[in-house]
Amino acid sequence: MGKIILLRHGQSEWNLENRFTGWTDVDLTDKGREEARAAGLKIKESGLEPRYYFTSYLKRAIHTLQIAAEAMDREWVPVTKDWHLNERHYGALQGLNKADTAKKYGDRQVHIWRRSYDVEPPALTADDPRFPGHDPRYASLSDDELPLTESLKTTIGRVRPCWEEFIAPAIRLYDTVLVAAHGNSLRALAMMLLHITPDKIMSVEIPTGAPWVFDLDPRLTVTASRYL
Amino acid sequence: MGKIILLRHGQSEWNLENRFTGWTDVDLTDKGREEARAAGLKIKESGLEPRYYFTSYLKRAIHTLQIAAEAMDREWVPVTKDWHLNERHYGALQGLNKADTAKKYGDRQVHIWRRSYDVEPPALTADDPRFPGHDPRYASLSDDELPLTESLKTTIGRVRPCWEEFIAPAIRLYDTVLVAAHGNSLRALAMMLLHITPDKIMSVEIPTGAPWVFDLDPRLTVTASRYL
Repeated sequence: MGKIILLRHGQSEWNLENRFTGWTDVDLTDKGREEARAAGLKIKESGLEPRYYFTSYLKRAIHTLQIAAEAMDREWVPVTKDWHLNERHYGALQGLNKADTAKKYGDRQVHIWRRSYDVEPPALTADDPRFPGHDPRYASLSDDELPLTESLKTTIGRVRPCWEEFIAPAIRLYDTVLVAAHGNSLRALAMMLLHITPDKIMSVEIPTGAPWVFDLDPRLTVTASRYL
Repeated sequence: MGKIILLRHGQSEWNLENRFTGWTDVDLTDKGREEARAAGLKIKESGLEPRYYFTSYLKRAIHTLQIAAEAMDREWVPVTKDWHLNERHYGALQGLNKADTAKKYGDRQVHIWRRSYDVEPPALTADDPRFPGHDPRYASLSDDELPLTESLKTTIGRVRPCWEEFIAPAIRLYDTVLVAAHGNSLRALAMMLLHITPDKIMSVEIPTGAPWVFDLDPRLTVTASRYL
């Protein structure tokens, strides 16, 4: 019987500023740090003892994990940081204010970009300073892997190999695994775990600071799930 | 040309209380956290960009690394936590006040325990709550690996395989590696890097919060070293 715990990071600086974030590496706010601490305490109080951690390359998820690990008194647990668990890339919308964007493109268009399964926001060009190819942390990625924009569908396409190659084997080896990541990369994992269909997944809202626990049988099929 | 940076954690709660710490998992003080931040800033200002991190299983080293990584804006760098990089195990002295211990055993005996190369402090018994075999983080260690006490010599004996199997290969792969650890596990690494003899190593005092940088040739022989 394995367990996976999904933990969505809490409030970040750009949540406060109402800007599209995506792969922009903004930090948590004090409120976000408090959410992470509360989540760690909930996991500890539940009696769950994660023995392997996963997180993304983005500091709002990494700090969430570190703060939760401190609250659990389990800083020593091994961790894999993987860009495949990054938030969905928001393309040329990254950094823009959401209200300004709605004024410019219309509410309906912004809703489509935010809520459809396979529509990508406008793409970056590779000479844009926001293109991940300019960031040393992504230097080992191939041109095929470096996103100019992403839909939820393409996000799921890159989360899946991380699940298959790293997270699923870690559950078999370590039994209880914690993944601290982002709304859309966690949606991708929830979709795989619960066999949620594309037309349903966008209505799944994962709350921040509430660890989502899945009990798994030896074939890693979900037998129960609950929020702490 | 590879580089390795050794970073000793700063003040911990038991430094303040003047107690033998060893494998006891005490946290940094505010001063210790400030030392870590200053060390991270020094590395950043030097232009060095570590691409792989190592640390121990003990939170005073793990937090030092995390705080330094945040100061460098390099939280995303992969990390291996390895118990082989833990502080020297102080046996039955762990938790005791250093002044009380000197009164009980005499200054000369305490000096020998602290400063000799191959004399071990009194050993724990396996039923002592301080024995690492009772701690889940060491559950995968064999009886041979679980220390009841350690001299600097035995500490070096367990740091060496971590160097050979993990740190040296990481330098070849990632070029610049940062190790955040403890006075004695870093002494062990310095001894290997600089070919320091047993009679000299105890007089090597590694300052806290001052990153120690070694330039290495392709055979990982040290060509230069400096404190930042």
